[in-house]
Amino acid sequence: MRTLQVEVPGERPYPIHIGAGALRAELPDVVRRHGRELVVVITNETLARLYPDGVADVLRDLPLRVAACILPDGEQFKTLDTLTRIYDRLMALEAHRNTLIVAFGGGVVGDTAGFAAATFMRGLPLVQVPTTLLAQVDSSVGGKTAVNHREAKNAVGAFKQPAGVVMDMEFLATLPPRELTAGLFELVKHGMIRDAALFEFLEARRAAFSGRDWSFWEEAVFRSCRVKAAVVQEDPRETDQRAILNFGHSLGHLLETHTGYETFLHGEAVGVGMLFASFVSRRWGHLVPDDYSRIRSLLLTSMPRKRIAPLDESGFTRLLMHDKKAAQQSIRFILLGGLGKVFIRERTTPAELWPEFQRFLAEEPDALAMGAG
Amino acid sequence: MRTLQVEVPGERPYPIHIGAGALRAELPDVVRRHGRELVVVITNETLARLYPDGVADVLRDLPLRVAACILPDGEQFKTLDTLTRIYDRLMALEAHRNTLIVAFGGGVVGDTAGFAAATFMRGLPLVQVPTTLLAQVDSSVGGKTAVNHREAKNAVGAFKQPAGVVMDMEFLATLPPRELTAGLFELVKHGMIRDAALFEFLEARRAAFSGRDWSFWEEAVFRSCRVKAAVVQEDPRETDQRAILNFGHSLGHLLETHTGYETFLHGEAVGVGMLFASFVSRRWGHLVPDDYSRIRSLLLTSMPRKRIAPLDESGFTRLLMHDKKAAQQSIRFILLGGLGKVFIRERTTPAELWPEFQRFLAEEPDALAMGAG
Repeated sequence: MRTLQVEVPGERPYPIHIGAGALRAELPDVVRRHGRELVVVITNETLARLYPDGVADVLRDLPLRVAACILPDGEQFKTLDTLTRIYDRLMALEAHRNTLIVAFGGGVVGDTAGFAAATFMRGLPLVQVPTTLLAQVDSSVGGKTAVNHREAKNAVGAFKQPAGVVMDMEFLATLPPRELTAGLFELVKHGMIRDAALFEFLEARRAAFSGRDWSFWEEAVFRSCRVKAAVVQEDPRETDQRAILNFGHSLGHLLETHTGYETFLHGEAVGVGMLFASFVSRRWGHLVPDDYSRIRSLLLTSMPRKRIAPLDESGFTRLLMHDKKAAQQSIRFILLGGLGKVFIRERTTPAELWPEFQRFLAEEPDALAMGAG
Repeated sequence: MRTLQVEVPGERPYPIHIGAGALRAELPDVVRRHGRELVVVITNETLARLYPDGVADVLRDLPLRVAACILPDGEQFKTLDTLTRIYDRLMALEAHRNTLIVAFGGGVVGDTAGFAAATFMRGLPLVQVPTTLLAQVDSSVGGKTAVNHREAKNAVGAFKQPAGVVMDMEFLATLPPRELTAGLFELVKHGMIRDAALFEFLEARRAAFSGRDWSFWEEAVFRSCRVKAAVVQEDPRETDQRAILNFGHSLGHLLETHTGYETFLHGEAVGVGMLFASFVSRRWGHLVPDDYSRIRSLLLTSMPRKRIAPLDESGFTRLLMHDKKAAQQSIRFILLGGLGKVFIRERTTPAELWPEFQRFLAEEPDALAMGAG
């Protein structure tokens, strides 16, 4: 078991407990410390089936009332309507300002329950129990919570630092292999942008990517969360440097939107985006070819080959700009200056990236292909 | 024109500009400092009729796009549905993280628009332009924003410090006299709990309460906001001492609920509640009779005599406890220890307050009467 202490300026420090069996070993203590009278476990239907009374059972010995709030499963339910359901349930349970929320699930549960906790009675204490690799390395560190608007993802949300986070590796056992791999890309990302030693650790242990060696996953998740926590500590409100966490996300988001969110899991799209950003970094002279080869080799270990519908320059530009008509003619593009070294290139234009994208398609067909075939 | 600088720990300091003509004199500069490309003025139908293009006209010379979002008028529209309307409008206007929100209206507009600004894209800059006395002295200092749930007022919200506040006394001219008086009680409250000099200033100038002497109102609002800002600075998240701002609110809330929010304006109910809390403070030996007489005299200057339907001890208890069935058998009751001196009495029971309430009805019939007649 590892524990990472996160200190965000202006907020109370909180622990992230990471390890196989952490749910049983750590959650009761975290809940005892922050709960008063009532604990509401927010989860989804799938997890409620997989782990009936899972969390409630672990909390059985505490002198607290434990109630559940079960949401439908899926990104399409990450909405203001679901939020209203949570508020109704909290009201019916007579939740008050000391009621503790436990968010038990993947990113959708964490984001939605986290936003409810940020806003009900202007803020209830929150414990995150992320059950997917992606949620463990990404969405449960940093305090970002949100729901989607029909026109934009994560359009409505708040920053809410949890009182504690419990990451139990054993939940990864029930994760479909494809989701495990998708989460891995965000984990690799943290090595690429800020921690060359983490990158090297992953290179050395790539045989463990598809297995159940919990000690590998514990170490990998711990190191990854440590990187993210460091970046968030420096810029909790995402005004500046935190943007480096968006490495790989420009093309990633473009691919997700272009394929209607049906071809890629988020992590997979980001994986391709990271390879593309590394490719551009090499092409523009910031990254030496050797480092590019190592990155390519590690990313392609787990990358499923994807094919997308044809896309011309105007479509590429429109998607890269998020369909915004106005002012913005450029984006902030995140480049690598070496393994573990990242920098922001302001005012990068679609016109600069489009030829690189065409070259990328030609040179990296194992990552991405375009057109029928 | 007076300016009060508010410094909340962990947030950027912001100015409150107070004075007749402040809208024209100060708003353009505040907006220039915080606006980028797009400014969205959120207001209600009544104000949009009273001041067509009022705010837009003042901002005409700035190189910014100014758009409006007009809400229906009334507390019954302070809901999640209205919030969704605001999000839809912001999305249609292509608002982004730098879009400035100007909340132009009373407490309902300020609370609803403020919550939208706190949550859209996880936070847009916000300027409050409160147009009622109550909103000027109360809801636009302190960063509390919220909407109602059908079962509880202000059930869902966030803390959001504005980038600036502009309080123009001239808006008070269009306020119904009853609303002006209701706002006055919160203003008197700030003197009673923390600033004996403000209380004495109000005693000396009571002839100005019903008039349009803007220099009186400017001074009174300035001093009142200064008290509230000081309390908020010490406890921005309302974990402890900020509760003293709830002076008068225990009975006030009970009266509002008992009368279905139809007999009292919020400020009026709080006025009666403050007199009751002072009465109890005298009865329990914390407040000398002379101070009670001065408080009574000042409050009764503007207090309309109210009559409420009969209420027995069990109803009194239920309403005082906010209908909560469970655990809580007592409340935190705020008492006076002298003019400008307040303290919190923990674990005050309805059984202690009920006989005092009966005495209050008997001894202060000009403030409150019960039963038919």
